[in-house]
Formats: sequence, C-alpha cells, structure tokens
Amino acid sequence: MIDLWFTEKHSEGAKFSIHVKEHLYSKKSPFQQIDFFDSYEFGKFFTLDGIMMANEKDEFIYHEMITHVPLASNLDIKKVLVIGGGDGGTVRELTKYKSIEQIDMVEIDEMVVNACKKYLPLTSSKLNDKRVNLFFEDGLLFIKNKKNLYDLILVDSTDPIGPGEGLFSKEFYENCFEALTKNGILINQHESPYYPFNVREMKRSHNKIKDIFPISKVYQFHMPTYPSGHWLFGFASKGVDPLNCNSEKWNSLNLETKYYNTNIHKASFALPNYVIELLNHSNDD
Amino acid sequence: MIDLWFTEKHSEGAKFSIHVKEHLYSKKSPFQQIDFFDSYEFGKFFTLDGIMMANEKDEFIYHEMITHVPLASNLDIKKVLVIGGGDGGTVRELTKYKSIEQIDMVEIDEMVVNACKKYLPLTSSKLNDKRVNLFFEDGLLFIKNKKNLYDLILVDSTDPIGPGEGLFSKEFYENCFEALTKNGILINQHESPYYPFNVREMKRSHNKIKDIFPISKVYQFHMPTYPSGHWLFGFASKGVDPLNCNSEKWNSLNLETKYYNTNIHKASFALPNYVIELLNHSNDD
Repeated sequence: MIDLWFTEKHSEGAKFSIHVKEHLYSKKSPFQQIDFFDSYEFGKFFTLDGIMMANEKDEFIYHEMITHVPLASNLDIKKVLVIGGGDGGTVRELTKYKSIEQIDMVEIDEMVVNACKKYLPLTSSKLNDKRVNLFFEDGLLFIKNKKNLYDLILVDSTDPIGPGEGLFSKEFYENCFEALTKNGILINQHESPYYPFNVREMKRSHNKIKDIFPISKVYQFHMPTYPSGHWLFGFASKGVDPLNCNSEKWNSLNLETKYYNTNIHKASFALPNYVIELLNHSNDD
Repeated sequence: MIDLWFTEKHSEGAKFSIHVKEHLYSKKSPFQQIDFFDSYEFGKFFTLDGIMMANEKDEFIYHEMITHVPLASNLDIKKVLVIGGGDGGTVRELTKYKSIEQIDMVEIDEMVVNACKKYLPLTSSKLNDKRVNLFFEDGLLFIKNKKNLYDLILVDSTDPIGPGEGLFSKEFYENCFEALTKNGILINQHESPYYPFNVREMKRSHNKIKDIFPISKVYQFHMPTYPSGHWLFGFASKGVDPLNCNSEKWNSLNLETKYYNTNIHKASFALPNYVIELLNHSNDD
C-alpha cells in the first residue's frame, strides 16, 4: 500500500499534512488548480491551488457560521447573494430557511461546482433547490451597478491570492454596500489572527470594510483544518447589530445545526485581546 | 543549511510540522523524553514524549485561560495548588493576583522545570516568587489525604498517556474534591472534541468529574498548536458558577492579558452543538 500525504503550508514555518487514501481528481481550470482527495481522517476533501477548501469532517462548521449568524440577526432576509461558495455548503444552509425567496450564487469556476456535485454530494446537495440561480461569472463584475437588491451578501471566497483577490478590494466592498437593501448585511471570509499572511489580510480587509459600513464587527469560530484553526468572518451591515439577534424566534424554527446555536452566536463576537488589538490597528501597514 | 522539521501526529491521519532552527536539548528523564527546539514560526518550544507542550508564540493562551477563568469567578481565592505545569506559565499568571497568598506547585519531573528555566525564561519567570512552593513529587500521591486546604486546584497536565495518566482517574478527582475548601474550584486539562483520541479522553474525563462535583462545566479556547486548535478546560466546583463572574471587579484589577477578557470568559462556556452532544453522551463508551 502506498503511503500518500497531502501537505499544506500554513505559514513559512508550519505545515499540516493529511493521510490520503486516494487522489480522486486533478485538473487545471482557466482559473486555478483543482484537486479532490479521499482521506482517512477527514473523508473527501478538495483543494484549490493546493489550499484546503472543504472536507466532509468539518465543512459544517464554516458553512453554518457564515449563514446562521446573519440569518438569526435578521429573520426577514428574503434575497441572498452568495459570491464564491462553489462547493454548495453555504447554499445548503441557506435553503433551511423557508422565508428565503431567492438565492443567487455567483461562482467564477464551473469546474469546481461540477466536481463538488460528483465528489461532495452532501455539501452540494441543495444547488438544485428551485430558489437557487447559479451564475458562472466573475463576482467582481456581477456585483457592479447592482443597487438595493440583496438583503444579504455572503462572500464565501478563497484566500486573497488568485481568483479570490479582487473579493478583498475596497471597490468590491463598496459595490456590495450599494447592492444591499436598507438593512443589508455583508458577511466576508475574514482570514485569521495567527499566521503572518492571514493576519495581514485580516487587517487589510477590516480596514477597508470599517470605512464603508456603519456597523463592522468580526466573529470567530473553531475551524480545525484551516491554518491555526482560529478563523474569522466579518459582519458588516447598514444597521443590523448581530448582538441583538432574536434567539427565541430562531430557536422556534427548529433548524438542525451541528455547530451553530444562539449562545455560540453571541459568544463568537467576544474576541481575544490580541485579536482586538490587531483589528484596532488594522490601518498600520 | 539543513532543513529540519519537527512533526507531531495529531491523529492517525493528520500531522503538524514545525520548521526547526535548532534542536537545543534532548534528554530522557525517569518519566519521559524531553526535547527543546528553536523554531522560525513559534520561537522556542518543548515537547514531552514528542507532544508539543508550550511555545513562545501561543503559550499565553493556554496559561491565561487555565488561570483567569477561575480567578475571575472567585476573587477571594487565597491558596492554590498547581499539579503539573512544569514550564511555569500557569504560576506566572497566578502571581499577577496580589490576593493570592500561597501557590503550591507539584511537578513530577524536576528536569522539565530546570530546562524550562533555561530555555523558556519568560514562561518560567515567576517560579521564584516568594509565595510559590515547588514540590517535585507525584501529584497523585501529593493530593491524597489532603482535606479542605486549597481554594483552587489547576491540573496543568499532559495527555492521559505516560506520567499524566493518573491525573485523569476518578480517584484523583475525588481526592481533589476532598482537598478543596467550601467554595473550591478544580480546573482540568480537558482535551479536545475533534480527533478520536482526544474525544475519547474528553468524554472519559467529563463523565468522571460530573459525578463528583455539583457544578461541572466545560469551556473552550483557540490554541493553534494543539491538535485541531480547539481545546477545552473543565471547570468543576463545589458551588461557584463561572457564569456569575464579577467582570467589573476583575477589570478594576487592571491585569494585563493578551487573550483573556471578561467577554471571552462568558463566551468560552458557549459550546458548539456537536461538543455539547459528545459531553452529554460522555458515558457511552
């Protein structure tokens, strides 16, 4: 039996390796290198340009936290835009809400979606929900000139290298602001406070968003297969404060979640001192 | 230049590797294999039997969370027992409290303490505080027949293999109960909810403690260099509820912390659904 390990550098001085059963798929799309694996510890997983995106063991954590925090903050959300999110996990969580009427998902890379449908059927299971409209386009261009259209925008992107880079730009966040309705919420993949590369991008991202949105907070969760396991989302809005979430009403929906609950919701906005410090000095470099 | 990496298996199917500048120390004590390294990302760190114990980059997280959560829950704590904790980080945090009168530290392995004094001087900096009494003894034996002596016991142990094993036994927890004063608190290293080995020990530990102490809770924190980065402490007490911590009074002490604050304190007890589920079924196997 061969002894096969996938290795990802989490920083210049640290790497994480996964024992692989089988390398299932390896193709170069017009945008990036796409690979799918089966593994002993994490089940099936896929990488883009060699970076772990999602695996069967803990994808629920990321997808629940990107979705239920904004939804529990405003249960009147009807129209949602997902940018990125090719594996479908974010859409799967959104479809749990009967109140949502429309989900537009803009993924630049159709090959990612097709491969996820084949290898990660549970993650991508709701992409054929009748409320979902799939656009295989550049999110940066899609969002331009959209006004007052979405109650929620979820930026479910890769790191800011390669095709995800523009999704961390000031122009993009400004276009999101314009595309949102009066109580609109923007959630963005906000990197991590631990390793130098992630810290830099976390600060850059926060620095831009806080100048555009009147409410701009950051929340954290435990995502074991991402670098450091300490991952963040940004919660920016035109008026909704996530700490005023309606726990009773959300709990009355009886949605099944494996990570999220309304205690975690409030708790996730309590950040360690060193993270607060980094965010407060986000315009230093 | 040589390309040297330290690798730790986080589970059978996942491993974490650290780029090493220099292997500083390698000795076998009567109890375990002790190694110190200098690294690019984490500064100096040490391992016991090949498992990461503490490093200069993130030891503050573990040591602040084991200490300030019980202290902020009861600021009248005067006498503390630390079991394990050879690197001195827990004692360093305890000495920040002028109100603490006595700190007994029982570490089985004197060689660990001596090496930490040499290679991790900031972590071990307060071991010579005049309130600190060092005992190089087996914590299991030390605690036996102690009655009503300590306001707080901190079990700062390795995983339950090797010398740390007895510190996860029912008899040990019962002896801790007896050694505690009326409002006594026991904090124990409670493993992690993610990889199979840690999950098993987390459940076994919780199952034993909850039968002995009237209050038995679990709290979490982000510890990037431990397996999965999602780590837990157990908070057991004869009466003190950690959710009733006196934030105002703790904040008035003006202690300097890099991770802990009183928002994190309360937030750390909000656990993900899947962790609650595992703990609720802690006696299943």
